[in-house]
Amino acid sequence: MTASPKGTFHGVGLGPGDPDLVTVKAVKLVEAAGLLTYFAKAGRRGNARTIVDKWVPAGKEELPLFYPMTTETHFGEEVYIAALKGFYEESVAAIAAVLDQGRDVVLVCEGDPMFYGSFMHLYIRLKDRYPTKITPGVTGMAGCWAAAGLPMTWGDDQLSVLPGTLDEDELVGRLRATDAAVIMKLGTNFPKVRRAIARAGLLERATYVERGTMAGESVVRLAEREAETAPYFSLILIPGEGRRP
Amino acid sequence: MTASPKGTFHGVGLGPGDPDLVTVKAVKLVEAAGLLTYFAKAGRRGNARTIVDKWVPAGKEELPLFYPMTTETHFGEEVYIAALKGFYEESVAAIAAVLDQGRDVVLVCEGDPMFYGSFMHLYIRLKDRYPTKITPGVTGMAGCWAAAGLPMTWGDDQLSVLPGTLDEDELVGRLRATDAAVIMKLGTNFPKVRRAIARAGLLERATYVERGTMAGESVVRLAEREAETAPYFSLILIPGEGRRP
Repeated sequence: MTASPKGTFHGVGLGPGDPDLVTVKAVKLVEAAGLLTYFAKAGRRGNARTIVDKWVPAGKEELPLFYPMTTETHFGEEVYIAALKGFYEESVAAIAAVLDQGRDVVLVCEGDPMFYGSFMHLYIRLKDRYPTKITPGVTGMAGCWAAAGLPMTWGDDQLSVLPGTLDEDELVGRLRATDAAVIMKLGTNFPKVRRAIARAGLLERATYVERGTMAGESVVRLAEREAETAPYFSLILIPGEGRRP
Repeated sequence: MTASPKGTFHGVGLGPGDPDLVTVKAVKLVEAAGLLTYFAKAGRRGNARTIVDKWVPAGKEELPLFYPMTTETHFGEEVYIAALKGFYEESVAAIAAVLDQGRDVVLVCEGDPMFYGSFMHLYIRLKDRYPTKITPGVTGMAGCWAAAGLPMTWGDDQLSVLPGTLDEDELVGRLRATDAAVIMKLGTNFPKVRRAIARAGLLERATYVERGTMAGESVVRLAEREAETAPYFSLILIPGEGRRP
């Protein structure tokens, strides 16, 4: 008896939210998948699954991977990390069992799989054991600057992608040192991020985008938005001002 | 006689090079375009036109926009800027004439239209005169990190996109201050960029990617590539090493 060849593990980006911003390659991979899998919050359908809905053939075998908890702030960091580690390892085992049958597994994710993607935690555990392929996607930030009509980087502009989790002084320093910036992971960091942008003298150049390319999309000048928090699908854009003949 | 409504000016990203990394939305817009337009070097077909080839219906009306010169290094900066300015203004006039007939114009470009795109120079001249819409695309850098199988940003990693035109000391400082980096615009800056990466202690973490997702794709450890120059479709990736439960 010869061993059957292993299946391929695919990480597939679905783009920022609009189902038509999925690539042709992603659609083909979803259609051909032996197993379709994706991350979701417990009890939810999941953003990735929602984006890809119109491209999933009837009867496709699916495996939702439910996060063990919805937000790290409810738990001590060590407990949270241990729970996540266990979750990733169980997910890997479930996917490996299908790959061992010689079937391809397609993990779909919002945005791009290699850019802040949970996919990467499974990828580093599987890539040396199985054939793997990455299909890039349109990032959430590109969806947002398209929605806002903001040209982001010109000529020799430098772009910094900054997490809102940085402390305020650090953010101010980084914002002063760059030409263009995207600030992600806002949540309860929103008031601090807004203060840092104001201190860096950039409030008038900053745009806040919520649910870019999705239903309920909203684009406002940051100067006009004062709030204590910001939802998951939101970020702040500060376009560059480089060379413009 | 009533004035007919103006056409819409579309900036459409085509992704990093693989024709199947075009989005479904981009394909639909190309099919429906009243006029399909794109930038190209004089005497060439153009990278954007090549990527979109399989998606252009027979008989589609097209307008190539030929750059007035192929590289700025042959000319003094002022002459070059004046020539580019004239070229952008002529392009705008040609596109406006079609929009005035009520026909939609679709300008397709490599990567994402708002991320270092020539499209932006026409966009800022047309956006207040005509309805405009931006369709984001997969960036060249995302195509390259997918091709290289490199997870780029984890957890709270900061990403810096740096032009190779920065001077060496500046590059070293910026590389030391970031978690993850993409260095673009290599060309004849390649040896300087490589030295800066080595001085920042990052040579072993750096990957050089040429023609990511395209025919002739090449991925090598930067430490293994010593050369005086790098072609247009190339960049260097330094992945982050953030939180990994």
